[in-house]
Amino acid sequence: MIIDVFFTTGEVEPVGFQEATAVVIDVVRATTCMVEALANGAKAIFPTVSIEEAVKLASSLGRDDTLLCGESKGIKIEGFDLGNSPGEFSPDVIGAKRLVMSTTNGTVAFSFAQEAERIVACAFTNLSAVAEAVSGVDRLVIQCAGRQGRFALEDALCAGHLVKRITEGVADVQLNDGALAARALAKGIKIGPKVLEPTAAGRALEAIGLAGDLKLCASVDRHAIVPEMHNQALTAAR
Amino acid sequence: MIIDVFFTTGEVEPVGFQEATAVVIDVVRATTCMVEALANGAKAIFPTVSIEEAVKLASSLGRDDTLLCGESKGIKIEGFDLGNSPGEFSPDVIGAKRLVMSTTNGTVAFSFAQEAERIVACAFTNLSAVAEAVSGVDRLVIQCAGRQGRFALEDALCAGHLVKRITEGVADVQLNDGALAARALAKGIKIGPKVLEPTAAGRALEAIGLAGDLKLCASVDRHAIVPEMHNQALTAAR
Repeated sequence: MIIDVFFTTGEVEPVGFQEATAVVIDVVRATTCMVEALANGAKAIFPTVSIEEAVKLASSLGRDDTLLCGESKGIKIEGFDLGNSPGEFSPDVIGAKRLVMSTTNGTVAFSFAQEAERIVACAFTNLSAVAEAVSGVDRLVIQCAGRQGRFALEDALCAGHLVKRITEGVADVQLNDGALAARALAKGIKIGPKVLEPTAAGRALEAIGLAGDLKLCASVDRHAIVPEMHNQALTAAR
Repeated sequence: MIIDVFFTTGEVEPVGFQEATAVVIDVVRATTCMVEALANGAKAIFPTVSIEEAVKLASSLGRDDTLLCGESKGIKIEGFDLGNSPGEFSPDVIGAKRLVMSTTNGTVAFSFAQEAERIVACAFTNLSAVAEAVSGVDRLVIQCAGRQGRFALEDALCAGHLVKRITEGVADVQLNDGALAARALAKGIKIGPKVLEPTAAGRALEAIGLAGDLKLCASVDRHAIVPEMHNQALTAAR
């Protein structure tokens, strides 16, 4: 088994995903929101690379059962139905709806991985479900969303805990430098809201009054759900 | 004190170095070679961004007391005097010479940091000397060379040990995500050749028969020397 972890989208060409299973991670907050939404009954989530693409797609899908969600600079986009706080994605709001989502880092990371054989979304909230779903594949590429092209600690830590779980007791595994480092990080740092607070993402949320989101983002295995991409949309595999 | 660590050159714009002290790290092997060369009597080292620039510069400096050194794909460049193995930089070979150096990652990283107020080169071999030289500056930017735009474990680990030494007992310090992760890595991983062997850089050296270089690259505090950039050249501050 080969496992590569990339901490930023700049580290790998799209061709690097070919014939691989890709895991996309954006703990604060896109993939956490996706897991929450699908666990709470959303029919499908369409990640987009821009606000413009999101608006156009929602319009073509039909606005009756489609919600626009996401953020720009952390804050809900004007005219959108929802922002990017996982707590917003409650069953009464998003049940049986399709979501079109645009965020600064997370939704964009999915487009980088689009040549992968299979694409799943991972957060702390569905860590064990993803670990089980991807264990034993020949080649796994874990793409951290990072933060505006920079390393993000929370994504690296989530990647590391995923690598740790997948490789426990597995003899024949080849890790790239990112995977070696991420796993070492996971061995030294336990998951919790306190870890997220001093990160750039945590401080940015604090600055806009959304630090409360971190608690849910740090909840391990809250859902046994694996968002998986089919025809441009993530749906729930349980 | 603010400390930012960037694992790849893609993570920061040149403007991000303004009014900062920059530390450039390329453990395997550029900055290790620089430390070795200056400790062994080289007068100055000119890092360049390409083979062409190196050849042109060496010619303009005068070839009598100037050596061309560096690698392409790990191997000594045709027509150059030396490759990029730290063991080549012995006093009898490089004493009182000026060196013009071209490497794939390390020498290029210096050009990214060129707007910094002060630029120094760091490797495991001069870790404590650099830690002492940069302790207490207002803003420190540690730029890892990485490997062709990707995260390199050995550089991250060296950055982490540097951050760990600088921040020990210092109360008022603000670390970016890279610095938080690097320091955590350093707390979990001891320095030694065994750590370098499974890295991409270590495996590449093994493949071209140069794995022997790793031992010197992993020697902590072999020299109490701080290569510092003045007028495009690194010289020795002790």
